[in-house]
This record gives sequence, structure tokens and C-alpha cells, in this order.
Amino acid sequence: MLLAFDDEQVLAQRLAAELQCPLALITRHRFPDGEVRLVLPKPLPPQVWLLRGLQHQPNDRLVELLIAAPAARAWGARQLVLVAPYLAYMRQDMEFTPGEAVSQRHIAALLATQFDRVVTVDPHLHRINSLDEVMPPGVGTALSAASLLGRWIAAQGPGALLVGPDEESGQWVAEAARAAGLDHAVGRKVRHGDTQVQLAFPDVAVAGRPVVLLDDMASTGRTLIGAAREALARGAVSVDVAVTHALFNGDALPALQAAGIRHVWSSNAIPHASNAVCIAPLVAAALRER
Amino acid sequence: MLLAFDDEQVLAQRLAAELQCPLALITRHRFPDGEVRLVLPKPLPPQVWLLRGLQHQPNDRLVELLIAAPAARAWGARQLVLVAPYLAYMRQDMEFTPGEAVSQRHIAALLATQFDRVVTVDPHLHRINSLDEVMPPGVGTALSAASLLGRWIAAQGPGALLVGPDEESGQWVAEAARAAGLDHAVGRKVRHGDTQVQLAFPDVAVAGRPVVLLDDMASTGRTLIGAAREALARGAVSVDVAVTHALFNGDALPALQAAGIRHVWSSNAIPHASNAVCIAPLVAAALRER
Repeated sequence: MLLAFDDEQVLAQRLAAELQCPLALITRHRFPDGEVRLVLPKPLPPQVWLLRGLQHQPNDRLVELLIAAPAARAWGARQLVLVAPYLAYMRQDMEFTPGEAVSQRHIAALLATQFDRVVTVDPHLHRINSLDEVMPPGVGTALSAASLLGRWIAAQGPGALLVGPDEESGQWVAEAARAAGLDHAVGRKVRHGDTQVQLAFPDVAVAGRPVVLLDDMASTGRTLIGAAREALARGAVSVDVAVTHALFNGDALPALQAAGIRHVWSSNAIPHASNAVCIAPLVAAALRER
Repeated sequence: MLLAFDDEQVLAQRLAAELQCPLALITRHRFPDGEVRLVLPKPLPPQVWLLRGLQHQPNDRLVELLIAAPAARAWGARQLVLVAPYLAYMRQDMEFTPGEAVSQRHIAALLATQFDRVVTVDPHLHRINSLDEVMPPGVGTALSAASLLGRWIAAQGPGALLVGPDEESGQWVAEAARAAGLDHAVGRKVRHGDTQVQLAFPDVAVAGRPVVLLDDMASTGRTLIGAAREALARGAVSVDVAVTHALFNGDALPALQAAGIRHVWSSNAIPHASNAVCIAPLVAAALRER
């Protein structure tokens, strides 16, 4: 059975259709003091997939998961798999300041205590290579929407140049380009002093070409806006954006459009007006494997 | 060492003074996407008491704890004790609707996985007798501010009648009365149909007496307002209120005053303008015991 929260049903319905399994909802009520009350379907079958992304106010969503998981087991689930298309706290992956909590490690370990398996899409793993470094081996599965995004871009028109923001995204952008048969290039981080970082646009000819900026996530959109201006100044005929995780806050989309960006495409890992690519087949395939 | 969060230092300073131990702060930064970054003092000594109440937006506070606890261990703590003067989710103590998560049980169990001991004050345990029913034996310690409140009331003037709202508070109000050498009485719940519950004022003479309404917690204050009106209608010379947990939301205090309630007193288990009684000696004694 696929279990999902009542505030996020679009991807849930698509995923249940792919898995050809029943979908049931967890209903939520929020009390004035901030506590949440959850009602689960009951009884639950032994095998339960629980869908819940951890974008936007992840603390509320985390606590909901930490209540829902033991409740699901109390109501019959024995094998409990979390499908979290977006995982929170993955960017806090080192002790940037002495004493700083390495939240990536602690949140990942916490989820691993509650779920038999955690399946996610493009987690922001820059300093580690795999979820196995922060969860017991075999618990975490990191899928990638890079190929889906690459193929979507290729289907929109020929000859696009895929551009990743920095070296960290290199492999990921290369995968999208390979899947789509497109060219790609990757910018680099330039450090000014100890704290200032600027992104340098890759040293490739873009004049007369359609450029698509690719990244795993975007929130304020500032990185994308800088790169778009650079590409247009160098003579790109168009600049589009494709991201796995559309974390965009309120005014990010108008700002992107104002900077001359034509289309913004995203996967539906996070529900957003820009969703163009569905991750349900990708996730369903991974769930079916085991 | 006593460790506390940077947004709540008054009780922390009092408790550190009682314990005659150093106090260190965890600093918090909140990102626009709702994730929190914590910086702990480092290194930490083997024995750490971590002070954090779970009132008001408890989900944020819970996640902060779930990050701070493993981080404290990573930075040296071996024996980690949570002092949570107010514990959240204690009222969700049964499956009121079929399938409803019994959050009291799940949150208590979760805290017990992170802390060697959890010390709290007047948790709202109505259907269970002890934290031992929801945590491994010996992990949870429930202290009571009833005696402190009783003695405070007695010190304000002679002859007060302590009134508890219902049978559930009976033992607790009796303890306050015994500690203070005051009379007490307890109301009762009257059910109308399946869902409607009214509180009946106790059948005692209050004419000409000062009445103090006592409860473990108050949020909207509606229960207290109903009881105050009843006491005044029966001729009480004054009505005051004393609670352990001043959860009061924005307009609760003016509403209590408008209903004729004279003084509102609370323990400082939750920081609030009504705080009159300090729980630091009570908590320190429990921490020193083990």
C-alpha cells in the first residue's frame, strides 16, 4: 500500500498508478499550540510505502514522519519504506563553524532508525558520495532525475547546450547530457577571500545557441539569474532552466523571468507550477526492485 | 555542564546557579527554507544536562533537540539528560478516533532513544500513571510543581480554597493543598451526549472566601473563565489562578482579567509574564539525586 499525507496527493496518485497499488491518506489536524494530530488508515498491510517530501518547513514534516512511522507499525506495517523525493538538511554536511551540528548526518541517521528503507531523488550530496555514508548500508537509495530532465530538454528542441553551475554538479549534468545526446559544460567556483564565492560561467561558445541551465535545486534563483545574464550577454539565443527540486520561494519565478529566462522546468519531486517531468516511473522502478 | 538554547536563558541561569555548574548556550540560526542550524559549545564534558521546554511550536523545538542530542554526543557528551519543563504531545494519549496516532507514546519513545534521562514537570498524564508506561523504566522523571504553587498561594494570604477543574486533577490539587495547609475541592466532568463535556463547579461553600483555581496547564483559559464566573456568582470574595504551565495564547490574559480573575500565577516551567514560582530548586534536586 502507498500511504501519503492529505496535503500532497498529485504525485501520490501517479505513483500509486505506476505501482498498481492502493493509495490511502493520512489526515492531519493542527492544534493552536502547534501540535499535529494524525489519523492513519487502519489496519495497514505488512508492506507500506510512505510518501512524504521534506521541502518547506521541514521540521513540521519531520515530526509528522516521526509520529506516522511508529503509528504505521502499531497499525500493522512491518516493512516501512519512506519515499522522500526531497530530503531536508542535506546541505548541512560539515562542521562549517567549530561546534556546528552536522545535521545531514544526524537527520539521516534519525530517519534510518524509523524506516527500513529511504528512497530519495537527487539529495544534495556534495561532500559525500552516497547515502551509505550517513545511513546503515542498504537503507538509503538516491535516485537521479538528471536523465529525465535531459530527455525533456531534448524533446523541446534541438541543439541545446546544458550548463551546470559548478564542478560539484559536473557528473550530474554529464548524465543529463548523455541521456539526451546534448552538449554540456560546467562553470566553476571562484573564491574571493575566505567567505566570498562567485560562480564563473564555463568558457564555451554560446553565441547563437539555446542554453539550458541545469541544477539539482533552486530556491532564491540567484545563481540561475547570474548565469542567465552571462549567457545572454555572450549571445545565447535563449536561456531556459531545468531543476530537480523547485524549492522556489514566493518571488523567485518572476525574478527569473525578469532576468530573461524563458522557460523554467522542474521535476515533480516538489509540487510547483513549473513541474514538467514526472518522477513516478523512476521511483516506482526503484521500489519494485526490492 | 548545563546546556541551553539561546532564546530561553532565564530559567537556565537560575538552574545553573542551583546546580553550581557552568552554563553554555546553543546558538540557532534559521534558514529561509525553515531548516535550523545549531552551533554547540565544543568540546563538551561527559555529563551534560540539556534544558529545553517543548511549548509553542513544539515541532521546531523537537527537531532542534533531535539534532542537538546526537551533536552533543559527537562533541563529547556521554551522559545526556534532557530537562524539558514542558513536554509536548502528552495530551494525545489514546486513539480517540480509529487509526489516530497515539502521539504521547511515540514522542516519549523517540525522546528516550536520544536521552539517557528525561526530567519534566507536571506532564499531562491522565490515562497513564507514570512516564515509565511510555519510556523505558527509569528514563522518565515527572516532577510536580503542585507543592510550590500551594505554598506560594498560602504565602499570599490566609484561608484560600483551592479548586481543581475535574477529577483528573484531584490528586494533584490535594498535594498542593496538603503542602500549603489549605482546603481544597475538585469539580467534575459532566457529559452531554457523546462529545459535549461541561465542567461542574464543586459542591462546596465559597461565599465570603478567596478562591484559587488550580490546574496543571492553561492555554485558552476558557475552563478557568467558566469556573471563575461560577465562583464569583456563588459569592467568592476573590478568584485567583495558579498553573504550572502558562501556555496562554495572545489574548488569554486580558480575557481572564475581564472575567473577574484577580491574579494569575504560574511556575516558570514556561517563560511568561505571570511567572511567580521558580522550579529551579525542584529540578536541581532531582538532577543531583542521580
